[in-house]
Amino acid sequence: MPGRFIVLEGGEGAGKTGAIAFLAAELTARGHRVVPTREPGGTPEGKALRALLLSENGLDWAPDAELLLMNADRVQHLERVVRPALQAGAIVISDRYAGSTIAYQGAGRGLGVERVIDLHREIQHDFWPDLTIVLDIPPEVGLARSRARLAGGGIDEGRFEGLDLDFHRRVRQSFLAQAAHMGRHAAVIDATLPPDAVQAAALAAVLRVLG
Amino acid sequence: MPGRFIVLEGGEGAGKTGAIAFLAAELTARGHRVVPTREPGGTPEGKALRALLLSENGLDWAPDAELLLMNADRVQHLERVVRPALQAGAIVISDRYAGSTIAYQGAGRGLGVERVIDLHREIQHDFWPDLTIVLDIPPEVGLARSRARLAGGGIDEGRFEGLDLDFHRRVRQSFLAQAAHMGRHAAVIDATLPPDAVQAAALAAVLRVLG
Repeated sequence: MPGRFIVLEGGEGAGKTGAIAFLAAELTARGHRVVPTREPGGTPEGKALRALLLSENGLDWAPDAELLLMNADRVQHLERVVRPALQAGAIVISDRYAGSTIAYQGAGRGLGVERVIDLHREIQHDFWPDLTIVLDIPPEVGLARSRARLAGGGIDEGRFEGLDLDFHRRVRQSFLAQAAHMGRHAAVIDATLPPDAVQAAALAAVLRVLG
Repeated sequence: MPGRFIVLEGGEGAGKTGAIAFLAAELTARGHRVVPTREPGGTPEGKALRALLLSENGLDWAPDAELLLMNADRVQHLERVVRPALQAGAIVISDRYAGSTIAYQGAGRGLGVERVIDLHREIQHDFWPDLTIVLDIPPEVGLARSRARLAGGGIDEGRFEGLDLDFHRRVRQSFLAQAAHMGRHAAVIDATLPPDAVQAAALAAVLRVLG
């Protein structure tokens, strides 16, 4: 497709939101059409699903059901946002994609990385980003940042923040293993660096893909 | 598993609700523990999903996303309601199951019957009812009944009622084809017969499975 599909992945507090805002501004200034988006919740339907997954409403999803809801959100997102924008030549920058499902549900929840990938192949027709940027951060550091943001009145991203450190270590290792497997389609950035250094590295990685 | 899993399938207006109430009363009177349930919406989580699918809230699901939501509802239903009840020796009677996904999404929406069945095999571990009772009714008759019920202030089951007759004919043919394939695990009942005849036939089919 004429556009480029860029995804930012990483644990809580890795700085994805700031990096995406920076990339969008820089790429727009360079004359690109940029579509920032997210999973879950990048469509009206996905927002409704995200509310079912995140809210403190007493709902308790079986892990396999959660996996399917993530994939339903992704179907909707690819069909209604990502593919049309790529067809129109835009740079789509998504906050999370299949890599998060592999990391959180496959490795973190223990559903099995291969199982999650098989389902992705079957349901999403094996559709992968041109570039996945992993903002890598030790869970201790990322969770502390994330909690500080919450204490400051920020948005609660997560039902995952209450889970134990071992869970978050499995998630981190999965992101790193995925990046190793993706080769030139991935860039790992040390997210403990100052934000401007992280964002400059992310921009450099994107420009390599565009160039 | 010690219990029995009975499913009622059929188009709108076929009389599933009345038949399930009758079966539950008769089987309970015979000393069985009966768990009447439904898809979608047989769990609190499923009810929330059902609301996303049925409501007139402007949400417009991609057919593949709808297929995954139906399967997410089913995972939750099997894990939290159906399997525990069967393990405890109950007769579970469900208003719709995988046969409806095959008929409505696979045949009706045109996603492909084989694709829906493959996904069922992968996600639900190929779990099928001991008996599927198909209440067979020509769509013209069923839809007229269903609309009369709505005009009387009944519950609107469906986003499917507005679809064209060809859609409902594909659904009906799929239910019949599935029953033919299931052999002794299926019973087809002419739902244009008077309700008491339909219900007596349904009870006879269930008693054969229990006997």
